[in-house]
Amino acid sequence: MKNPKLVPIILTVIIVVLAAAIIGILIFMKNQPIEKRGVQPLVEIAAMEPDSSKWGLNFPNQYTTLLLTETNQMRTTFGGSEPVEKLDVDPRLRTLFAGYSFSKGYSEDRGHMNSLTDVRNTPRLSDATPGTCYSCKSSSNPSLWAEMGMATYDAMKFTELTARVTEPIGCANCHEANTMRLVVTNPALEEALAEQGLDWTKFTRQEMRTVVCANCHVEYYFQKDTNYLTFPWDNGTRIEGIMDYYAEVGHTDWTHADSGAPIIKMQHPDYELFSAGSTHFNAGVACADCHMPYTRDGAVKFSTHNVMSPLLRPSETCGACHTDVDYVVERVTEIQGQVWATMENCENALVDAIAAIKTAAEDPNADAALIDEARQLHRQSQARWDFIAAENSMGFHNPEEALRILAVATDFARQAQIKAIEAVK
Amino acid sequence: MKNPKLVPIILTVIIVVLAAAIIGILIFMKNQPIEKRGVQPLVEIAAMEPDSSKWGLNFPNQYTTLLLTETNQMRTTFGGSEPVEKLDVDPRLRTLFAGYSFSKGYSEDRGHMNSLTDVRNTPRLSDATPGTCYSCKSSSNPSLWAEMGMATYDAMKFTELTARVTEPIGCANCHEANTMRLVVTNPALEEALAEQGLDWTKFTRQEMRTVVCANCHVEYYFQKDTNYLTFPWDNGTRIEGIMDYYAEVGHTDWTHADSGAPIIKMQHPDYELFSAGSTHFNAGVACADCHMPYTRDGAVKFSTHNVMSPLLRPSETCGACHTDVDYVVERVTEIQGQVWATMENCENALVDAIAAIKTAAEDPNADAALIDEARQLHRQSQARWDFIAAENSMGFHNPEEALRILAVATDFARQAQIKAIEAVK
Repeated sequence: MKNPKLVPIILTVIIVVLAAAIIGILIFMKNQPIEKRGVQPLVEIAAMEPDSSKWGLNFPNQYTTLLLTETNQMRTTFGGSEPVEKLDVDPRLRTLFAGYSFSKGYSEDRGHMNSLTDVRNTPRLSDATPGTCYSCKSSSNPSLWAEMGMATYDAMKFTELTARVTEPIGCANCHEANTMRLVVTNPALEEALAEQGLDWTKFTRQEMRTVVCANCHVEYYFQKDTNYLTFPWDNGTRIEGIMDYYAEVGHTDWTHADSGAPIIKMQHPDYELFSAGSTHFNAGVACADCHMPYTRDGAVKFSTHNVMSPLLRPSETCGACHTDVDYVVERVTEIQGQVWATMENCENALVDAIAAIKTAAEDPNADAALIDEARQLHRQSQARWDFIAAENSMGFHNPEEALRILAVATDFARQAQIKAIEAVK
Repeated sequence: MKNPKLVPIILTVIIVVLAAAIIGILIFMKNQPIEKRGVQPLVEIAAMEPDSSKWGLNFPNQYTTLLLTETNQMRTTFGGSEPVEKLDVDPRLRTLFAGYSFSKGYSEDRGHMNSLTDVRNTPRLSDATPGTCYSCKSSSNPSLWAEMGMATYDAMKFTELTARVTEPIGCANCHEANTMRLVVTNPALEEALAEQGLDWTKFTRQEMRTVVCANCHVEYYFQKDTNYLTFPWDNGTRIEGIMDYYAEVGHTDWTHADSGAPIIKMQHPDYELFSAGSTHFNAGVACADCHMPYTRDGAVKFSTHNVMSPLLRPSETCGACHTDVDYVVERVTEIQGQVWATMENCENALVDAIAAIKTAAEDPNADAALIDEARQLHRQSQARWDFIAAENSMGFHNPEEALRILAVATDFARQAQIKAIEAVK
């Protein structure tokens, strides 16, 4: 060594460099994100992001199966997802809905991705259609409700909202961004649950796999003047409680053109019928177990978002619990046939009742009090029939309850007919 | 040895004795009965032996549990085996059965061992009661039918047969003596099965564990004049086929005192309802699986013959297949409640129909053709209501079918009422 004095200096420099490196490494390590359980997202999703394709970057299986709902036009014995006009299939419906928009068009409901297309093309639309009709049709809604409040949203006209409602049903309707937690997004559902003392944030995941469907698959109505979206559940979710509620608030959807009865149009009370003590609900089965069964993509297991009838893939749906899938499918079809036959009888009774009330109402000497009783019975009957008819399972969500309700509905329709006949004696 | 000449003699005697012994042993062994599979009976039972206590020597567990049916007075929510007078519990029944013996007395059916006591003490008996009424009440029947033929048996009066019919329901009603094979003993069942091309001797044991119950737990009628016991199954065992059959043969049990309608009294069509595509029947469950569950007496396993509602011992019955017995029992009770409510509505409709037809029939200016239509509708309605009401499961043997039938029955009753009202307009 030429200069022995440099030795301690060199050593000191080396020590300093090493110490700095250690500090640098520690700082680098400290700033690394903590490793989390689950899938690392590729992109951050904005809260209530309406665009499902953005969520799809993180969850390509869920997103691409959701996309399949646009074209999954398949048919079971009693249902389907093609654009079938029910009024042509069953012309009695024109009589049952006389004077209401459903007599203009009542097409079979299609998959989730068609929700915006179909709501904008239904012949039921008019200048008076409120914005509230978009409530179940779009993943744009959660952010719009957050921005303007549901009361403001519901006060707007359908056409006014059209520019803001850009997405069909999607991720934001049921999921919290990034956590992907299942959430109640429809304020009307939150309010209806709260009214019954229920706090959905305390529900189990399995309960949420049913409750998120109730964001839309329920009976609801628009409050008078405000069009405020409301679920009629203050007296419970059974048909009797719902009709009591409508009596208390004095709600009517329309006055029947032929009978003059104040009628309620039931929407799609899938949740109410299923949860009214059905054997599957009581056994802890969730909507998603049958309609969004666990599926595989290579080694990855996920809930398919191609929502459809369980009968279209019974091995994945029924087969998850039942060993003899062929037997179960045959059984479902037999039960649905029994419900369908009972529903047809009920429709015939309603058509007869409507004709009898119309005849009585046209008779100037008829007993007005009896006609009014007949109209009330028509209201009660048609609401019960529609509770099963508008529901999407041909009764299978709860077979005994469906048949019980249809038996009462048929009885009420015939009683309405009797009152009308007696009114003109 | 004193006399050496004796040696060969003694040896010869020993050989002869031994040979004789061997022959004797072989003869003894040859005459021993061949060992058979199963239980060795203590006593031989005569073919169609009416006295169950004799069979009981061989099968004490089966016999002593049969004896328990005399006193097993227990109640479920919707049924029981105590001597309850149904006419007092539900006074509408007096109206529904007006003009028929069932309006005099309609007590809850008790256990099998009470069959003779109860049939001899019912207020429905009269001097005209045919011997055919004993057909389902006694283990004396198979030997009597064999001896005299069913036509002769049925041609006798009830009181004439009384001395010959000495035993309540017992072993000989379902078993072949000694083999204990399950057998069809009621000639009417054999004929009804043959009419459908069915040969019960080819049935599996599991099928027989249902079919032997159909020896009695069925709808039947007595042919006009001969009182010949007949099952109305030529058009199948569904209610629609049964009513078509009664129309074809022109059978009526009685003319209703108030409405004048030609009415069919349904008996106890448990077999028909259960076998009409019920989920349990389709799944291969037999009547005995639920009503005569396998039981233990020490190390011995046997079918209890203390026949009763499965709900009274759900662990042995439902629990043989279902893991969550409490859940299942709650479910059954809920379904039965739905059937009961629907049946009550139907009874109210029938009572209204009967009153309306009575009013019309008393009006000399009423339209006779319309009254006749009303009576036919009353007949069709009441047969369907009674098909479920007389059946012993409050609909649970086949819930969807029961509710379907009750819905139609209610509709027909109201239509009958309408025709009657229109007859006097």
